[in-house]
Order: sequence, then structure tokens, then C-alpha cells
Amino acid sequence: MLKVGLLGAGRIGAVHAKAISSHSGSRLVAVSDVNSEAASKLAALYGAEARTNEAIIDDKSIHAVLIASSTSTHSDLIEAATKAGKAALCEKPVDLSLTRALACQKAVVPTGRPVMIGFNRRFDPNFAALKASLDKGEIGKSELLSVTSFDPAPPPISYVKVSGGLFRDMMIHDFDIACWIMGTTPDQVTAVGTSIVDPEIGKAGDVDTAVVTLHYSDGRIAVIKNSRRAAYGYDQRIEILGSAGLLAAANVLESTVSKATSAGVVSAKPEYFFLERYMRAYAAEWVAFVDAVTNKTSLPVTLADGVNALAIAEAAYRSAKSKSTVDLASVL
Amino acid sequence: MLKVGLLGAGRIGAVHAKAISSHSGSRLVAVSDVNSEAASKLAALYGAEARTNEAIIDDKSIHAVLIASSTSTHSDLIEAATKAGKAALCEKPVDLSLTRALACQKAVVPTGRPVMIGFNRRFDPNFAALKASLDKGEIGKSELLSVTSFDPAPPPISYVKVSGGLFRDMMIHDFDIACWIMGTTPDQVTAVGTSIVDPEIGKAGDVDTAVVTLHYSDGRIAVIKNSRRAAYGYDQRIEILGSAGLLAAANVLESTVSKATSAGVVSAKPEYFFLERYMRAYAAEWVAFVDAVTNKTSLPVTLADGVNALAIAEAAYRSAKSKSTVDLASVL
Amino acid sequence: MLKVGLLGAGRIGAVHAKAISSHSGSRLVAVSDVNSEAASKLAALYGAEARTNEAIIDDKSIHAVLIASSTSTHSDLIEAATKAGKAALCEKPVDLSLTRALACQKAVVPTGRPVMIGFNRRFDPNFAALKASLDKGEIGKSELLSVTSFDPAPPPISYVKVSGGLFRDMMIHDFDIACWIMGTTPDQVTAVGTSIVDPEIGKAGDVDTAVVTLHYSDGRIAVIKNSRRAAYGYDQRIEILGSAGLLAAANVLESTVSKATSAGVVSAKPEYFFLERYMRAYAAEWVAFVDAVTNKTSLPVTLADGVNALAIAEAAYRSAKSKSTVDLASVL
Amino acid sequence: MLKVGLLGAGRIGAVHAKAISSHSGSRLVAVSDVNSEAASKLAALYGAEARTNEAIIDDKSIHAVLIASSTSTHSDLIEAATKAGKAALCEKPVDLSLTRALACQKAVVPTGRPVMIGFNRRFDPNFAALKASLDKGEIGKSELLSVTSFDPAPPPISYVKVSGGLFRDMMIHDFDIACWIMGTTPDQVTAVGTSIVDPEIGKAGDVDTAVVTLHYSDGRIAVIKNSRRAAYGYDQRIEILGSAGLLAAANVLESTVSKATSAGVVSAKPEYFFLERYMRAYAAEWVAFVDAVTNKTSLPVTLADGVNALAIAEAAYRSAKSKSTVDLASVL
Repeated sequence: MLKVGLLGAGRIGAVHAKAISSHSGSRLVAVSDVNSEAASKLAALYGAEARTNEAIIDDKSIHAVLIASSTSTHSDLIEAATKAGKAALCEKPVDLSLTRALACQKAVVPTGRPVMIGFNRRFDPNFAALKASLDKGEIGKSELLSVTSFDPAPPPISYVKVSGGLFRDMMIHDFDIACWIMGTTPDQVTAVGTSIVDPEIGKAGDVDTAVVTLHYSDGRIAVIKNSRRAAYGYDQRIEILGSAGLLAAANVLESTVSKATSAGVVSAKPEYFFLERYMRAYAAEWVAFVDAVTNKTSLPVTLADGVNALAIAEAAYRSAKSKSTVDLASVL
Repeated sequence: MLKVGLLGAGRIGAVHAKAISSHSGSRLVAVSDVNSEAASKLAALYGAEARTNEAIIDDKSIHAVLIASSTSTHSDLIEAATKAGKAALCEKPVDLSLTRALACQKAVVPTGRPVMIGFNRRFDPNFAALKASLDKGEIGKSELLSVTSFDPAPPPISYVKVSGGLFRDMMIHDFDIACWIMGTTPDQVTAVGTSIVDPEIGKAGDVDTAVVTLHYSDGRIAVIKNSRRAAYGYDQRIEILGSAGLLAAANVLESTVSKATSAGVVSAKPEYFFLERYMRAYAAEWVAFVDAVTNKTSLPVTLADGVNALAIAEAAYRSAKSKSTVDLASVL
Repeated sequence: MLKVGLLGAGRIGAVHAKAISSHSGSRLVAVSDVNSEAASKLAALYGAEARTNEAIIDDKSIHAVLIASSTSTHSDLIEAATKAGKAALCEKPVDLSLTRALACQKAVVPTGRPVMIGFNRRFDPNFAALKASLDKGEIGKSELLSVTSFDPAPPPISYVKVSGGLFRDMMIHDFDIACWIMGTTPDQVTAVGTSIVDPEIGKAGDVDTAVVTLHYSDGRIAVIKNSRRAAYGYDQRIEILGSAGLLAAANVLESTVSKATSAGVVSAKPEYFFLERYMRAYAAEWVAFVDAVTNKTSLPVTLADGVNALAIAEAAYRSAKSKSTVDLASVL
Repeated sequence: MLKVGLLGAGRIGAVHAKAISSHSGSRLVAVSDVNSEAASKLAALYGAEARTNEAIIDDKSIHAVLIASSTSTHSDLIEAATKAGKAALCEKPVDLSLTRALACQKAVVPTGRPVMIGFNRRFDPNFAALKASLDKGEIGKSELLSVTSFDPAPPPISYVKVSGGLFRDMMIHDFDIACWIMGTTPDQVTAVGTSIVDPEIGKAGDVDTAVVTLHYSDGRIAVIKNSRRAAYGYDQRIEILGSAGLLAAANVLESTVSKATSAGVVSAKPEYFFLERYMRAYAAEWVAFVDAVTNKTSLPVTLADGVNALAIAEAAYRSAKSKSTVDLASVL
């Protein structure tokens, strides 16, 4: 039985608390949050205690922490937890600063503790089925990957301002998806971004619509499209063209019902946002983490994966600014 | 070059005139109609002459007739044309009276002339692809056939009154589809009909919504659903369950465009009615007729097929009335 | 907190045990089974006790029972549990004998206790969405309902022999769906059945493929297709044609992934069987039961619904045998 | 009646010959080709004469020419034909040299004759339906366009070598689609290309897989993906995200039949290549040309459109080479 401390009791912390509690191999023993009331409330729901971060990290009976606090605390908490001998599952991104993330990665190595980054989409059953088919060679050798990733609506401007920008905050998921599907990191990054959804986002120095092309050393290409707004809901699709065919993972719809009238045939919309679409992925992510930690097997997503995605985001940022292709090596 | 006379210059006659003229192996030489102006107009479009039925049938240089006149004239014209040595393609049904159709069939035999009935749906490329897959054994042995066949809107009551009723006028196409797909005629017919779309249809003694179940001697079943009204357009689908799977032919949509908004995902409607959906089928039907007549090979649809479909309609009528299953043999 | 005793620890009992335990408003306190080892095992999983049926029914601290034992025990247990003041959720069918089910219904009335029958499909989110759209009048007035319900593979012959036959065992779900969607019971039942999937089923006196047409007093029609075998998995679809359009609930697929190669475009199969397809429905069913019992509101599915479905099954059996339409009133 | 000379009797010339002849408002009177036998054969099929280019252009009774000869002859023939007072419909591209195309455009102006470039895809009914919906504002303001355009198989290397390269030969269609859908030309072009399908293409100095991002002055973005190989057939899709939704035009499939077996659900492939997919588009293109020329209305596709697409191709070529974004203005 893996005893777990949850650092962060916000919206995503609540999702993880449920996953931890529903798993027969793990138990939620403590919850912390800067808002101690939120911690108490969430802890109470699952028969856990509300504590401080420090109290959780210092508790030797706790085997693992799930870090779901604000991004600026991630690196510090990863370092503290692993130093204290704990395994950690940390929400993305590792840090907004690539330099800080690299330092964190360096600090963790000597502890030998497993650190997994919460790229939950790898555990979406549809994406996992696509990846499995690709790896079995069912469409031959991969050549061109396309990722469509649109949020239903832009976040508040206050969030945009501290988010690190679209590439580090939103597209980072897709950079990881690309690394995972293609089985490696790209050599070069070419980014084009614009603010067209909401001029306030542009004024805040960020983009809300972007296309990033990744170029791999063996000639393969990946292209990622992001928009902060899709009026019809969360648009999360992957397509990969291979030498013998194409694999596509379509959206998950709210129902299978269609309505045909004189106005056309209306089907359901995609599930609204990540809490709907990726609920099963969060559960599967936790199962995979518990499996790896318990059985001392390799983690399905590593801290290095978190650093790589952040490095691509950094390169994308520089490419969009310089209007030229950026070598990934140049940012590391 | 097959020289052809077209008997009937109405809406469906015009479709056939185009098919005849577009075929490099046939030429439309004459057109007749009770409305001589209509005949002249259609003939002029394709460089043909307007004539009487008799003049066309008596013209020894004409090899074949296409009978697209009113139902009540079909049997007489088939008999006259074949007696005059001509091949004939006649629109369905052979006749509203099964007795008359059987007599016509008997009369044609000694002439040895080929007579094909215009069950155009067999030539729809989608249905033909389904049939080919089934015949190749791709879903094993067939077990349960389902035919959905809804018109976009009911015909005028004046037409309903002379149509012979839904079973003989509309579902006859589906009876033929069932015979064709299943490769044989059923033993028993069980029909349930109702007038719910338009009470005027019920007052005219007809039904506008019906479900007919056909039972085959080897235990297989087919079920046909008809409605005179589908607000979204012409609904023409076939499904067949076999021992190793299911084949389904879906509707042909007006376009491949979908529109996703906050109101849902809207796709195009099915093509509106038979002139849209089956335009390619009419062309393919004519090609098949010309091939068979020119090469003296067997016709893809025979007069016997026309009689069989009519017999099933007759049995359906009796079943709906008696509320019990009717043996097909009992109506022949 | 609703304290619950589970009668029956088989495959479906295990599904219910999970639903009861996952609900924050109910607690599984005891489990019984003719196989006491099975009861102990399942009880242990959820911190409940293994007991006899009698001990559960006599325990005044238990508010409700979930009856998931063999069909032959359903009526007796419903009567005993309600007599003891308990609410009951009982798996379908109420009984194989319509007479016995009617007697059970009569016996329950004076107790005033709520009894719900486990027609889980009403709680499938797709079917529920279709029903909601229909009830909002989005396709106008309903006219023609079609239910496709195919199992992936036939049950063992030993089960077939005690099952009460396809109409009472399998199609009973679809009879209930028809009553629910159409909002009333039919007047007349017309059934055609055959044994074509497995000759052993025919030898056992049962059918494995059937089409049943229900006729309503207002002229509406429903048609239900059943097969004991669909090589591609559990086929569970509903379509309803209305005066202004068509609603269709398609299958739930195993994933959204498609693979396009030179061999065609391959999509995922439907979820394999009821444990996969209806897992969410079982959970929703339990939520609805707890809600109704706790808030003393009306049950979404009643014992009368269970009796009605059984009566339609009885009528279907007589119709298939007599090859004629049977009035539902004649079996009650 | 528009009298037409066809310059070029190859594969695409044959397609146009049929379109010209099938149109009631145009007549094919003469055909030329460097291969005089090919010209004679095609001319004979439609009752036209085989002649030289010069003889056709000098014939004052011919109102229009359709230029379907090799690319290197396009500019010269456009100039000669317009100088002789003829209207012209010329296959894409105007020329491989942007300089030459600009000169041709300049030379045509004083003649005042209408010149249309054969961007047939604008006339695809699906793309046209998408464009119409967009222009009606059904998804609000356009933001992000995605064009997927994969050929089924790469052309012979001999063709690749003289083709002008993927951007000028293949993606030029998509550049035009982007200009048409977005309603204007882009400001900036960012291209990434690779040779991964066939190393011989790379050795010939060309790419076979490419992603090009177009940036518009108002902030909108378009992204185009090309591959010379899609094992499942011609993949031709358009998606456009707007402020209120997404429009998508999916592929046209070979049939509507699906086959569900234990191996999955198999649907038909996209229509194989441009002759299948765009056959209706070629016919509609010709209708539009005849309409505009006959009624002296503005052409739906102009010579300027041809020059613009070529300029974007030129910019893409420079961008891929320089690994940086190229201003479209810099190539003009």
C-alpha cells in the first residue's frame, strides 16, 4: 500500500485525490495547500489529514507525493521530496524556467528517486491505442505527425499573464505528445504564433493561436496546432501518416446520439474540457505511477520528458520571435 | 448501336432519355407520350422523333423500348413490344394486379425476347458494393437483413389513390432488394402497417408507415421498414447480419462538410430523393441492359423478379389485413 | 446513508456491489449467495458481511436489498423484502412466469415499499440523451421506433434451456426500452423468430434470431431485432423516426482511433458486451434508485414496468408460435 | 455556342474534352498535341479536328482555348491566344518561373481577354459548400485554416525532375485553396520540407513531405500539409477554425459501405486520385468558365490567382532553404 501525500488541493488536486483513493494499491494520507481550508476540505472527503508541505515531506511513513500546487513551486517540491526519499508525480510543467528545470533534474539524479511528470494525455485510451498500433508497425514507418489541440475558451487574462505563455503552458502537452509518439525529441523547431482570439492576450505579450513544426534528424516532421478557443469544445486529435497508412484518434463525443432534421444531421460535441475528456487518463496515469513505483520498474514519463517538452517550448518561443527555425540544441 | 424507343416522357422518362443518349452503345430514336407536347419536347432535346407507341413498336429498325409510361400500360406495352421482337426495359411495377402480371409473364415467354424490370436500386454503387462483399463471404453466411426506406415526403393524395398502395408502389423496391440480397424469394410474409404520417392516406385505405418481415425457408429473416416521410431527406439504408459480421450501406450525403459550433456538430443531409440518390444507378441500369441485350447474356433483373416483388406486396397486403403471416405460395 | 444487502454474488452481483460501495449515499453491509464462498469473497472486498438471505431480510437496520440472484428466486425475494419493510432493486426479469410476476406485483402493493426493476439500459447516457431529445419534441411526434440488440455470442446451451427463451431473457430489455421510449405499452405484438445461429438452440425449443413488431393504439409502430451473435461485438442501437426527423443512438466504440491503409479504413469495434457497454448505466441506475428511495420520489423503473415487459414477451412467444398478431390484453 | 480549341491531348486534356463536349453551351472543334496521333484520337472521339496550336489560335471562329499542354508552354500559349482575341482556361501552374508568369500577366492585360487558371479544387462541391458556409458567417470570423493534401503515390522521378518541385507542382493547388478560403494572399510564408517518402526525390533536390504556414496581415494563420504518399488514397481535407466554430470538409469515400467483423469496422477508402475525386470539379470548372465568358462576368479564378499561388510557392522554396520566414512581398 503506497501512502501518498497530495501537495495542492485545487481543481486538479481534487482529481488526483479521487484517483489516489480509488486505487486499491494507494492511500491518500495527507493533503496540503496554501489555502488551508481547501486542504482540510479535500482531506476530509477521503479520510486524510490536512498538513503543511513540510510536514508531509518530513513524514517518513509517506512513500510518495503528488505535486499539484502552483507551477512556481514544482521544482522546489520535487527536490525536497526526492531528497526526503520520496517518489513524486508532479503536474506539468516542471518549471517555467528551463534553467531551473535543468537544475532540478540535476539535483534529483543523486537521490535515485523516481520522478514522473503528469503528461496525462499519454494515458488517454484513444491516444494509447494509436501509439500501440503505430509501434506494432500497422502503418509502416512514421513520417508526418499532426496534433490538433484547441481549448474550448481562453483562460482569464490574469492567468495568461503568469502562465509562461501558450508554448510553455498549453502546447507543452502537445510537445510531449510529439516526443512520445515520434519516440524521440526533434532537432529543430519552427513556430508561428498570433493573437487573434483575444486582443488582451496579445497585449499581455502572448499568442492565442499558433502552429509549430518540429523537424526530426531522420527527416520526419510533426506539426502542432493550438488555439485558445474552439466554440464547440475541447478539440484533441492526433493524426500520423506513415509509409503504409494513416492513424487518427478522433475526439471523444458527449454521446453517440445524432439528430437528423430538415436542418441537417446534428451529432454531439466533443467532451467539454480536460476534466471531462481526460478523467480516465488521470486515473490511468496514477495506476501507471503506482505500478512503476511499487514494482521498481521504469516510469512511463520521466523528469527528462518534462525538461524536453519545456526545452521545445523555449525553442518555439525563440523561433516565433526571430521568425526563423531554432535548433533545439541551442536552448539546452 | 442499339436503337431505342422511349415510351413515356414524364419525369422518369427524362432521366432515361439522358441515360440512353449518354451511352455510346445506344441511341434514342423516338419518344412517345399521352401528352404529345411532352414527347416532342423531350425528343427534341436528344435529336429523336416524337411518335405514337404504335409507331415505335411497329418500327422494325428499333431494337428496344424503354417503358416509362403509367403503370396501367406496362403489361400491355411489354406484351406488344416483345411480340414485335423488341427487348424491353420496363419501370416497376409490372402491374398493380398480380394476375395481370402473371399473364404478361406467360405471354412474353414464347417471344424469347429479353424483358428487364427497372429495379434501379440494385445498380446503386453502394448497394452493389454491399452485395459483392456479401457474395464473397466477407461476413460469412447471411442471417438477418434490414432495409430502411423512407421517402422525404408523402406523394399527393390523388397519387396515393391510384398507386396500388404503399406495398405495391413503394415497398416493392425493397421487396426486390430483399430478393436480390438474400438470393431468393421468401416463404412467408408478415406485415404491420399504419397511417400515422397523414390521416388522409389512411382515409384513402392505404398505410404510410409499415414494417414487413420476410421469412425464408432456410430460417433467414429480412425486415423492411417504410415511411412516407423523413423530414431530413431520402433515407435508404441496408444492413445485413451474417455469421461473421455485419455489412451496412449508409446514406449518401449531400456533402462531406461538417460544422461544429456550440450547438453541436452538423453534417449534411442524405441526398434529397430518388432523382438525386439514384441518378448514377439509372445510368448503370441502362449500361447493364444494353450489355445484356447486345451480348445476349442474362439480364440482371428479369420479368420474373418483377412478378416476385409484386407477389410479396400482395402477400403483405393480405398479412396486414388479416393480422397473420401469409405464405407467399398462397398468392401465386 | 442507505444500508444495503446484496442478494446474489455472481457476475452481476459484483457489478452492483461496486456501484453500491462507490455511492456516497449508500453502504453495502451484507452479501448472500447460494455459494457461500462467493458471498464471503465479495463481501470481504467491500468490508461487508456474508449472510443468508433470511438474515439480511430480517435485519431491521438494512434499508434496501439489491436482488441479483437467479431468476427463479426474484418474486419470492421481492415479496419477502418488501414485507420486511425494505426497498428493493431487482434484476430483470421479475419471473419467467407472467402469472407469478402478477401475483408478486399484487403482493407488494399493500406493503407500500418501492420496488425497482433493473432495466439498466434506460440509464445508458446515450439512450437517455436520445429520450431527452425526443421528449423535448426535437423530432416532433414519434412514429416508428427501431431497436437493434445483438449479443456478441450465444450463451451456453445449458443456460438457454433454463433462460425462459430469447423473448423473456434477452428481448425483455428491448421491450422495456420500447415502453420507455414510446411512453406506453403496445396494444399488439407480432413476432417472427428463427434458430439460425446455432441449431442446438432450435433443438432446445428456442429461437436465436427474432424480429418483433409492436403496434400502439395511436398507430405508432416499434420494431425490435435480436440476434444471439454479432461477430463484431455487442450491437446496441436505437433509432426513432418522428414527424420532424430521426434520432439515432449509435454504438459506443472501444476507441476513437481509425487506421487507413490500402485495405480500407478500420475503426474500433463496439464495446464487447454488457459489462463494458453498460458499466456506467449500472452506476447511474443505482444513483437513481438511491435518490428515489432516499427522497421518497417516484422510481424511474417500477415493478409494473417489469410485469409489462414480461407480458410483451409472453405475447411475442404466442405470436411467433401462432404466426399471427396477439393482443397484449389477451395475455394479462 | 462557345467554340473551343483544346491544346493538349494527354490525360488531363481528355478530361477537359469530355467536359467541353458534355456542356450544352460549348463545342469542341479542334484538338492539338505535340503527339499528333494523340490529338487525332481524342478529336475523333468528340467529332473535332486535329490541328496544330497555330492553326487553332489563328482560327477566328474559335472563341476560346483550353490549355492543357506541358507547363513550359503555358505562358506562350496564354499570350498567343489572348493576342488572337480568345478567352483561355489554362491548367496550373502559369509557369515554373515567377518572372515569366508576371510577364505573361502583363502581356495579357492590354488584350482585355479573360484568362482563367485551372484551380479545379475550388469547384469541388464539398470545398464549395465549406466556403459558402464560411462566407455566410456560420462559424464567425475565420482564424486558423488547415489543409491536408496527400497524393496516393509519388510520381516517377523523371517527372519530379522537371516538375518545378513539390511547392510549385503540388502544393500550388493548396496555396490557391488558402488564398480562396481566406479571401486574400498571405503576408509571410514559413516552410519546412523533407524527403522521407523516397530518397530519390531528395537526391533530385526536391522534398516529398512538407508543412507550410501562411501568416496573414490580420493575424490569421493557414497551415498546409503535403505528402507525396498516402497508402490509402488521395487525402484531400480542409478544416477552418473560426471564432464561433469549425468547418471541416472530409474525404469523399469510394462507397458508404462498412463491414464490421471481429477484425474491426472497415469503411471504404477515399477516392483514389484526382481523376476520381475531382471529376465533378472539372465539369463544374468548365461550366463556370463558359458562364463567365458567355455572360462577360468576372472569372471565378484569374490569371492573378495563378501568379499569386506561384509567388507563394517561390516564397516557400526560399523559406525552406533559408530556414526562416519569407515576406511574400520580397518575391514579387
